[in-house]
Amino acid sequence: MATRVRPLARSACTALLRQQKTLPSSSRRLQCMTKTNTIRAFRSSPHHGKQDLRGYNDSDRYHGQYPRRTHLCGDLRANNEGQHVVLNGWIQSPRAMSQDLIFIPLRDASGTTQLVFRSGSPELRTEIQRLTPECVICAEGVVMKRPDGMINNKQTTGAIEVELKKIYCLNPASGSLPFWPSQTAATLPNEEVRLRYRYLDLRRPELQKNIRLRSLVVNTVRQHLIDNGFTEIETPTLFKSTPEGAREFIVPTRKPGAFYALPQSPQQHKQMLMAAGFDRYFQIARCFRDEDLRADRQPEFTQIDLEMSFITAKELQEVVQGFVSSIWKKALGVELDASHFPHMTYQEAMTTYGSDKPDIRFDMKINEISDYLSDVIEQESALDCLVVKQGSKLTGGDLKSMQKALELGEEKDFAFVKINENNIHAWPSKCGRLKHSNRLGQIESDINNKLDIQVGDLVLVHKRERYLNGGNTLMGRVRLHLANLLQEKGLLKIDPNTYKFLWIESFPLFSPDEQNIRTWQATHHPFTAPFDEDIPLLTTDPAKVRGQHYDLVLNGMEIGGGSIRIHSPVMQRFIFDSVLQLEKHEYQRFDHLLDALSSGCPPHGGIALGFDRLMSILCNASSIRDVIAFPKAAGGKDLVVNSPSEVSPDQLKEYYLQVVNKE
Amino acid sequence: MATRVRPLARSACTALLRQQKTLPSSSRRLQCMTKTNTIRAFRSSPHHGKQDLRGYNDSDRYHGQYPRRTHLCGDLRANNEGQHVVLNGWIQSPRAMSQDLIFIPLRDASGTTQLVFRSGSPELRTEIQRLTPECVICAEGVVMKRPDGMINNKQTTGAIEVELKKIYCLNPASGSLPFWPSQTAATLPNEEVRLRYRYLDLRRPELQKNIRLRSLVVNTVRQHLIDNGFTEIETPTLFKSTPEGAREFIVPTRKPGAFYALPQSPQQHKQMLMAAGFDRYFQIARCFRDEDLRADRQPEFTQIDLEMSFITAKELQEVVQGFVSSIWKKALGVELDASHFPHMTYQEAMTTYGSDKPDIRFDMKINEISDYLSDVIEQESALDCLVVKQGSKLTGGDLKSMQKALELGEEKDFAFVKINENNIHAWPSKCGRLKHSNRLGQIESDINNKLDIQVGDLVLVHKRERYLNGGNTLMGRVRLHLANLLQEKGLLKIDPNTYKFLWIESFPLFSPDEQNIRTWQATHHPFTAPFDEDIPLLTTDPAKVRGQHYDLVLNGMEIGGGSIRIHSPVMQRFIFDSVLQLEKHEYQRFDHLLDALSSGCPPHGGIALGFDRLMSILCNASSIRDVIAFPKAAGGKDLVVNSPSEVSPDQLKEYYLQVVNKE
Repeated sequence: MATRVRPLARSACTALLRQQKTLPSSSRRLQCMTKTNTIRAFRSSPHHGKQDLRGYNDSDRYHGQYPRRTHLCGDLRANNEGQHVVLNGWIQSPRAMSQDLIFIPLRDASGTTQLVFRSGSPELRTEIQRLTPECVICAEGVVMKRPDGMINNKQTTGAIEVELKKIYCLNPASGSLPFWPSQTAATLPNEEVRLRYRYLDLRRPELQKNIRLRSLVVNTVRQHLIDNGFTEIETPTLFKSTPEGAREFIVPTRKPGAFYALPQSPQQHKQMLMAAGFDRYFQIARCFRDEDLRADRQPEFTQIDLEMSFITAKELQEVVQGFVSSIWKKALGVELDASHFPHMTYQEAMTTYGSDKPDIRFDMKINEISDYLSDVIEQESALDCLVVKQGSKLTGGDLKSMQKALELGEEKDFAFVKINENNIHAWPSKCGRLKHSNRLGQIESDINNKLDIQVGDLVLVHKRERYLNGGNTLMGRVRLHLANLLQEKGLLKIDPNTYKFLWIESFPLFSPDEQNIRTWQATHHPFTAPFDEDIPLLTTDPAKVRGQHYDLVLNGMEIGGGSIRIHSPVMQRFIFDSVLQLEKHEYQRFDHLLDALSSGCPPHGGIALGFDRLMSILCNASSIRDVIAFPKAAGGKDLVVNSPSEVSPDQLKEYYLQVVNKE
Repeated sequence: MATRVRPLARSACTALLRQQKTLPSSSRRLQCMTKTNTIRAFRSSPHHGKQDLRGYNDSDRYHGQYPRRTHLCGDLRANNEGQHVVLNGWIQSPRAMSQDLIFIPLRDASGTTQLVFRSGSPELRTEIQRLTPECVICAEGVVMKRPDGMINNKQTTGAIEVELKKIYCLNPASGSLPFWPSQTAATLPNEEVRLRYRYLDLRRPELQKNIRLRSLVVNTVRQHLIDNGFTEIETPTLFKSTPEGAREFIVPTRKPGAFYALPQSPQQHKQMLMAAGFDRYFQIARCFRDEDLRADRQPEFTQIDLEMSFITAKELQEVVQGFVSSIWKKALGVELDASHFPHMTYQEAMTTYGSDKPDIRFDMKINEISDYLSDVIEQESALDCLVVKQGSKLTGGDLKSMQKALELGEEKDFAFVKINENNIHAWPSKCGRLKHSNRLGQIESDINNKLDIQVGDLVLVHKRERYLNGGNTLMGRVRLHLANLLQEKGLLKIDPNTYKFLWIESFPLFSPDEQNIRTWQATHHPFTAPFDEDIPLLTTDPAKVRGQHYDLVLNGMEIGGGSIRIHSPVMQRFIFDSVLQLEKHEYQRFDHLLDALSSGCPPHGGIALGFDRLMSILCNASSIRDVIAFPKAAGGKDLVVNSPSEVSPDQLKEYYLQVVNKE
């Protein structure tokens, strides 16, 4: 007998199951309840004794073979006229025009066909009258052209209707569904209710489209990579605890105190696959991270993960551009070529856009004006200046709310001024410490010329540290905040079909240790290779070493990141030991990787793209939850199955665990 | 800055890492050590101070750009003669014929090319002499036809060699590798050592082939399903604890006492996807089961999982046959058609082969001879008879070892007799209780005729219960044991390229409760639908209800199992409640499924195929470990990364856990 492929083995009926799940009340649910609250009634009814159920009655639905479907609901056109067809699907609300004319829209994933009952048999009429919205039926009928004037050009099947001959009610829907998928967005209940009844929500055309597009896109990626010589390889989900980095899920085993951990990425395994000679690996990899869920995070998420041997960063980027272009063409009909993937260094991105993932769909570049005002800033500082065209139209309230949102209240080195005819030649004197400059009066026209400052503009200045690290600067955050504000006010327009990709490169390999325990930490991860020409700096000036890391940015969002890796065990050890100053016992956990590098490991590099976010951009979805079939809600809760939940004391005992500090 | 796609975040260098991993000693490792034990030496050396490493020396490998590869090693043929080529790969042992003639085989995944050094520069010679096996190099040279007599027809590149012009040593291999991938199977170390150094083992052509074939096969399945209208949908890995069935892995969360569990299959989610209107779903699904590892089990494994709406079992089986045929054609060049997928009922399989997954590559059918000897067996019993042609050639020792292996020592109802000229007409009198029959002397020639019993055969009889349940009968186990024995002795031949598929159907929906708490348990799982015509028996005679379950069997191994599911919430509730006698609080955990069935859920069914086992059959591998890139060893251990392992007290604290009863 099978055991592997069966989800609930024989003992399903005997094992002790525990009480669970109470129903969330939702006032919004009530608004779409039409009949008796069947689901609810079933649940709250007293326990049925055996005798009751021996009188088993399941006559509301048709049991047995029903005719095979001949067409999908969205398939029928005028040229099907006269054909006898069999359709399967979900009915929407029947509309009875009279006793002898009833319209019933029938929906499946392909579309909707109008079924029509016209003075047919009284039995058929009775059957139709018993149908509630979302009932599943099999309908037999004949395709008829709609009468002139009844043709619906908005519907693909709007030229025809199907005159009903027979229906089989395959499965009635409860009359008390919490909502109908056909409801307009405005009348739908809140997301929590919809996540709880996800199978209903997923029937909505929008989510159907997203989930089906996800399948198309992932298949496009796979096909592209396989056509380019990649091997798809599965790596373990039961991995090892590596407590650095994001918090990871741990998985107890029946060896006391021994745990697996769920992987945050297949990084180590894919590097070992390169050592193993697989040359071009990819995987659509499920990854895990036990972090508090921010807007666009899930505890489990999917990456397009790849790694290649004997390559340069450019070659790898071309592979990525290849499948991204395939996706854009298939999913959106948009043609992309190499010119759509410009490159920018980290330094340029940070100085010009104040971000390591610049949104270049709009201009609003940041300029450095340190040279003009070097007498009022220190050597190690730089003066950022942002000119917002027409920015004077922003109100004082707008700018105050920005200062509040970005917590600029205490920021003495930040100032802004609206340019008018009076101050255009003297605006620096209104900008905080700039007013102390000896050069006032000499520099304004040069700056105005260079930055094209005009009356009506808003000018913002900020003195920042010259040494850049981290993901953004204050002026970068200001730029994004103002861009949103300008969009809201109609002063900046971004076409929603604009897709601006950007490769960000030449990141510093090391950043100052945030925890101040050591000097340096790896900016990305400790396996990233330095630029070849920067290798000598490893021993002399680690701050200046650039890493062969690259991020792929789209519309200001990072959709992927990767690097050429260190393949030299000597260099890897040196970085662990001498630059990052790890104790030997700390990097011993990477012994297997050092061994792999020492075993004849080719030079290699790779990348991982966040697939959920990529899909949310393609679907123009406001949340990645809208592109995942069964996402977790806030707090990592699965509202469909009511998880996480308690486990039995016996289960805990088997894993030698005890729950402590339970509040 | 990126965080999602990065495996080890910034704090990598600051987090507290723990001591781990001591080296397994292996005497077999020693045999292939040639130079100093570099890896070992590195590890056991005293901790390098900063000063030492500031004198960073990594001159053994080439840093910087090397020429781009022009060909793969396996690509070159005679018609490439004269071309200047660049190859990348791993060198095998150089063979120096003289100072001016050195042969160096260079391997990549595509094959091996012979590099040759012929009276070149002394510098090049020196570089070559420094190369150890498994070094990674970039080689530049010119393709030459081999001299007559030197052509190797066994090698695809055997007509040419590449005269070396320049080499770049990209990464030397340690001189103390635990083994070389080029070693013959007989000289390789044991599996434990090879699993520990999996990246080396994976370089062996056999494993390279398996893992690459796995990619080809999974892509074949995907392409077939997508071409047939399926949508690939990912379901959650962080699922809910459902303690029935196989033991599941639990995943603690930061809510005290609340756990996820890793799914044993996507069963519930795929049924909800049908309720959601996805019509045709598939997923290559990672599943988990915390069971003690038997020979062919892994704690995490992969299923080809699919589900379809509005279908019959036959339609689903045709889909499966479709992709299985595609696989066999692509992977093995074998054409299969519908005739290769015969059907058999559970009853027939159990009575004729004594197994619900019969190996029909050989005949040896079991016959029931109850009618001839009804006077010595009870009404509720049946008499199985197996005739083994030429079975007299088996020795008494063979048969005794069988009795021992199958634990038949105490089995009074089992007997066997070798047929010779003296006993051929009286053999039942030698078979235990049969000798008490009043019909002896009247029935022997009828039985002999019917079963074609001849001198030299071995006849075995067993009285079993007439009511069949479970996976096999005693005579079924005897049949398999004897078939193995006969194969060993050359008395039975099974072509290793024989593939015998079989659909097993019409299983009893319910089986007697093994734990004797209730009357019935679900034979497979409680969501399997009964045959339509058997529905009335649900209330009157559950034992006779056949389920719409089907197993796909190949060469005596179950490779998949599925069913048409219950789509009626009334029937599902009746089965939970009245047949399986679950308490209401026990089946409340399936409330979401009952709700989904009540929401307008189409009739549906599906199947899951064990992908690892399927691959092991395709690869003719003795273990599924040989078709998984990074399998777990005995006890669920990952020997590469040394997992499962301890986690820090802080981690446990975050999950409100304490390890107890630690021995």
